[in-house]
Amino acid sequence: MDAQPHWLDPEQKAAWGSFIRMQETLIGRLSRSLQVDSGMSAADYAVLVSLTERGDGRMRLLDLAKLVEWEKSRMSHQVTRMAKRGLVAREECPDDGRGAFIVATPAGCKAIEEAAPTHVEHVRRLFIDALTPNQLSALGRISEHVLEHMGKQPD
Amino acid sequence: MDAQPHWLDPEQKAAWGSFIRMQETLIGRLSRSLQVDSGMSAADYAVLVSLTERGDGRMRLLDLAKLVEWEKSRMSHQVTRMAKRGLVAREECPDDGRGAFIVATPAGCKAIEEAAPTHVEHVRRLFIDALTPNQLSALGRISEHVLEHMGKQPD
Repeated sequence: MDAQPHWLDPEQKAAWGSFIRMQETLIGRLSRSLQVDSGMSAADYAVLVSLTERGDGRMRLLDLAKLVEWEKSRMSHQVTRMAKRGLVAREECPDDGRGAFIVATPAGCKAIEEAAPTHVEHVRRLFIDALTPNQLSALGRISEHVLEHMGKQPD
Repeated sequence: MDAQPHWLDPEQKAAWGSFIRMQETLIGRLSRSLQVDSGMSAADYAVLVSLTERGDGRMRLLDLAKLVEWEKSRMSHQVTRMAKRGLVAREECPDDGRGAFIVATPAGCKAIEEAAPTHVEHVRRLFIDALTPNQLSALGRISEHVLEHMGKQPD
């Protein structure tokens, strides 16, 4: 191929750059606050919130991975680390072949209950408060567009 | 404090959740493609793009950290790893006390030149193509709002 690379035009590049810097800064600041306030990583938080809010405390590994949009191997490593710290446990189901349930332990439930209010305050202070309700709903719709589009794209 | 936590309302929570899932999925897919196509992490790419596009091949560590919105210690570790792989080098400036320059080596320049066209194609395919020009510019403006707002917020 001797075709010229198809670079972004200046408007596309500016918007992409702003988005990347914003998400990098936001996720970085929220992750550091979470670590300082609660001793949890963003990944710990995502797993425990998913288990306790959506899964009633327990979910299959693959469903959990899908819910937070991770690959199964990443979730498996994360769950192993969290199990060592007593935040979750694996419940094997040898009978049905659909893999283990991941369960939030009482310590895990306590940890997320303690971490959530402060984390949500940071989300509100850094992100929600920056935007008007219209801007926030526009961002939600745009995000859904991108998610839907990505779902149709091969890797 | 016995006040109730100030949770997000359903609209805020939905928009926040969509945004988080979108950026997590997008960054994850771009990072995996970059690794597979070019053997580079997203962090390697960010450093080399910054050095070659904005810094004319060389920048001070602190300026580089500010440009990609990382803490200085994270950039220092990243540069150490990249120097071991020959992608960048440190040029000490003992005279002026403002710290070392980080320089893209010829191998680093070659690596980013080879990686960039394919990476930009993935950005276009997964993200830019998902949005109308109006949606993209709205996302850029919203991102700038959030960045400006975060700049005024203490850690």
